Amino acid sequence: MASALRASRALRPLTRSLNLRPSARTYANVTESRSAAAAAAQVQYDTTPITTAFFPDEPSGPQVNTAIPGPKSKEAIAKLHEVFDTRSLNMMANYQQSYGNYIADLDGNVLLDVYAQIASIPVGYSNPALLLAATSPDMASAIINRPALGNFPQHDWASILETGVLRVAPKGLNQVFTAMAGSDANETAYKAAFMWKAQQKRGGPDVDFEPESISSSMDNKAPGAPNMSIMSFKTGFHGRLFGSLSTTRSKPIHKIDIPAFDWPQAPFPMLKYPLEEHVAENRAEEQRCLDEAEDIIKNFHNPVAAVVVEPVQSEGGDNHASPFFFNGLREITRKHDVLLIVDEVQTGVGATGKFWAHDHWNLQDPPDMVTFSKKAQTAGYYFGNPELRPNKPYRQFNTWMGDPARAILFRAIINEIERLNLVENTAQVGDYLYNGIAGLAQKYPQHFQNLRGKGQGTFIAFDNPKRDEFLAKMKGLGINIGGSGATAVRLRPMLIFQKHHADILLDGLEKMANQL
Amino acid sequence: MASALRASRALRPLTRSLNLRPSARTYANVTESRSAAAAAAQVQYDTTPITTAFFPDEPSGPQVNTAIPGPKSKEAIAKLHEVFDTRSLNMMANYQQSYGNYIADLDGNVLLDVYAQIASIPVGYSNPALLLAATSPDMASAIINRPALGNFPQHDWASILETGVLRVAPKGLNQVFTAMAGSDANETAYKAAFMWKAQQKRGGPDVDFEPESISSSMDNKAPGAPNMSIMSFKTGFHGRLFGSLSTTRSKPIHKIDIPAFDWPQAPFPMLKYPLEEHVAENRAEEQRCLDEAEDIIKNFHNPVAAVVVEPVQSEGGDNHASPFFFNGLREITRKHDVLLIVDEVQTGVGATGKFWAHDHWNLQDPPDMVTFSKKAQTAGYYFGNPELRPNKPYRQFNTWMGDPARAILFRAIINEIERLNLVENTAQVGDYLYNGIAGLAQKYPQHFQNLRGKGQGTFIAFDNPKRDEFLAKMKGLGINIGGSGATAVRLRPMLIFQKHHADILLDGLEKMANQL
Repeated sequence: MASALRASRALRPLTRSLNLRPSARTYANVTESRSAAAAAAQVQYDTTPITTAFFPDEPSGPQVNTAIPGPKSKEAIAKLHEVFDTRSLNMMANYQQSYGNYIADLDGNVLLDVYAQIASIPVGYSNPALLLAATSPDMASAIINRPALGNFPQHDWASILETGVLRVAPKGLNQVFTAMAGSDANETAYKAAFMWKAQQKRGGPDVDFEPESISSSMDNKAPGAPNMSIMSFKTGFHGRLFGSLSTTRSKPIHKIDIPAFDWPQAPFPMLKYPLEEHVAENRAEEQRCLDEAEDIIKNFHNPVAAVVVEPVQSEGGDNHASPFFFNGLREITRKHDVLLIVDEVQTGVGATGKFWAHDHWNLQDPPDMVTFSKKAQTAGYYFGNPELRPNKPYRQFNTWMGDPARAILFRAIINEIERLNLVENTAQVGDYLYNGIAGLAQKYPQHFQNLRGKGQGTFIAFDNPKRDEFLAKMKGLGINIGGSGATAVRLRPMLIFQKHHADILLDGLEKMANQL
Repeated sequence: MASALRASRALRPLTRSLNLRPSARTYANVTESRSAAAAAAQVQYDTTPITTAFFPDEPSGPQVNTAIPGPKSKEAIAKLHEVFDTRSLNMMANYQQSYGNYIADLDGNVLLDVYAQIASIPVGYSNPALLLAATSPDMASAIINRPALGNFPQHDWASILETGVLRVAPKGLNQVFTAMAGSDANETAYKAAFMWKAQQKRGGPDVDFEPESISSSMDNKAPGAPNMSIMSFKTGFHGRLFGSLSTTRSKPIHKIDIPAFDWPQAPFPMLKYPLEEHVAENRAEEQRCLDEAEDIIKNFHNPVAAVVVEPVQSEGGDNHASPFFFNGLREITRKHDVLLIVDEVQTGVGATGKFWAHDHWNLQDPPDMVTFSKKAQTAGYYFGNPELRPNKPYRQFNTWMGDPARAILFRAIINEIERLNLVENTAQVGDYLYNGIAGLAQKYPQHFQNLRGKGQGTFIAFDNPKRDEFLAKMKGLGINIGGSGATAVRLRPMLIFQKHHADILLDGLEKMANQL
């Protein structure tokens, strides 16, 4: 283990963190070790002074004591496998021992975590501010007295929404339908789209349902169960329940043997990198995809009610497109009276250096719906147009309709993001990290191909031909990192990822490039 | 307001309940008021002595101060409606002020709650034992450090499962896949069924996917996205996402304008009441439905991979069938190599006087999968056959795969059920309540039609021709009660519902019969 990866001390247990408010924060003296590492790596890093550490009690670096999994983890995994499928297990964790950017396992290994539970931990493990929210009387009541929100909302539900989830509503959207996770957030948005489109065809919200629609709906047949569709994009990912999976086009292993709706897919731009060397080519590619999308909207046999798109196709391999493409998509959908649903399940809540990734596009008109989950720790869809509230009650309804406990947590996350200015932090650290990897890509081009995510916060990825080996070996260097698509290494640090963490990551990446 | 509805004192706030352990419980002196009420109502109730009160600090009865909604609630509802659809709102609640069987609103009204958040509150509002679990360090960590369970399970996940959700696994089933709510519990079970059936057709778990299945799955087309189906029953309810909604056949308002799969529905027995007067007729009706179900399984154009059925069709109007029917269904599905999924989302966790409602059937072979949610406060499906674990990882997967926080809560619920013997309590109180309503049905036959749920704990229902008026007016008597289907009044008390609560309910029902 390289000395740069030494950890100064053990993590303190969760319960001792309770009163650790960052108001007592100290300046971490990591400049020196970073500069030394940078010098050793002979790559020129940005020399901007390191800012205040958000988690002053974090380990100063990873600590790797054993092979991963170590003996205790192996034993626990075998035990778990008896009752729970562990074949997708990456690492067994002890979260009470995890803190800030660092995830601990059962053998005393502590890793810098730039995967963050598949991009879903926003402000660090065992974050003290979240712990305060999690141990508040409001949270306790929300956990033990879970309401059926549509029927018996709690007295402070409006306030929880207004001071939380709605405070960060995307521009132009002021309503929310709350859900449980990304899949049902997307599916309820799709349902809203179908109801809206059917109502439009019917002639408005006051026109009664046709008797034949009422009866045929009970038989799962048109016109009541209409042959309408949601258009998605190749290599997109929108979830794995039946409706969302019908729009997911990531990998066969996600879809095979599961019945799906006959819904269309448009091509997603396959951009060439570096972008500045392929400007005309990439523009033509985006125009080609827009043209094909418009053709499908006009001609697909099952009429398209909505288009769903990710700002960055995340599970599909971190495929980016430019604001030109997304503005074009907004124009086409408006022109043909089709809704635009932006799936911000993975991109939302700050990771791209804007609170919502689609803020980068400067759209004239907002998306019709924006779905969210993961870093929000709750889920749902935002909308603005009042016509997207179904014309009758109980059309968009279920028992729980979300979870006030998780909505309270999202509010605490938002407060923490604002208090520490974490979106701006992520934008700045993202630039620093991007530049660092760009330097590595010049030195080791074969290991850092198609570097992407410039100006997109820490939402950065590159391709590596030995990706799976790359990811596995990074654990040995004390860094937990994830992949997506066939060859992409995707970086998904938390919003509290700082320059001194970026330096550890850059050191690790360079070591790996030398090893592979 | 009748004097029988007086409440002895205000509810104590949640935080003061923290140390209220039932070990300090006292005997509630409610025998006297019950007998007086019974005498006044001139109905002969069972005179079994009242047992220990589980919630000694509960109000002794409802308290109704204002019309419901009262002025404060109206104001809060109007405010909430600006950001959240309130057209399905039944009552705005203050859960911190709710306790045991009683739900409080914003105007000081306190109602006996026999609807219990659409059958989803198991052991009482602000239950002290659950509060202890909700304020434990384990829960705090689970709230703030939510793992991606499939990739990074927590060190104690096996233990949480084994001491919780798996401890109450239905007989013959020893595995669980955890989910978020009833809809995705069912849909992931359906996915498991489709993968199992496709594998069977393919020749076993070791046979590779066919190249044409791999490629066609990405286009949502057969054979990769197969034209297989899940058979459900008329008037059944299994959720409202796209796959689950395709098996839901409750009401057009649940289904209209939403695309659905071409999946079949069999008739569900429409039994005549009282059962003992229609034995032969009902048996013939059940046989007719079994015959039709078998015919569909043999002949439907989209091959049936699984049959899903509720032990009691709950949302669809509390439609019961006998063990004969369900044993027949088990036989037919075995015979044709089709899986049987029992949807215990509403019936599970004790309400029918058995922990699982299908325990009433004495099946020779267990169901292949049993889904759960609601009173479990977490969700998922149980299974036993190892072939129902998909043959490769990442086939049944999503980011969160459930929620350890809610799994910890379910464990506390199970402990509470065992400690207070609540399943047995529900069986006994259910008999008492059923007999009381049977007495009312003799006296007021027009108001208590088709009484059903004998021997099924408190899972009792009857039809009332003025159902909606009935339900609305019961609030004025201090009782919160729900409906289902077109005309059913369904009783869904919590498992801590006792004889003295049943007496209040019986009094209220009789008053209503006199008023309507």
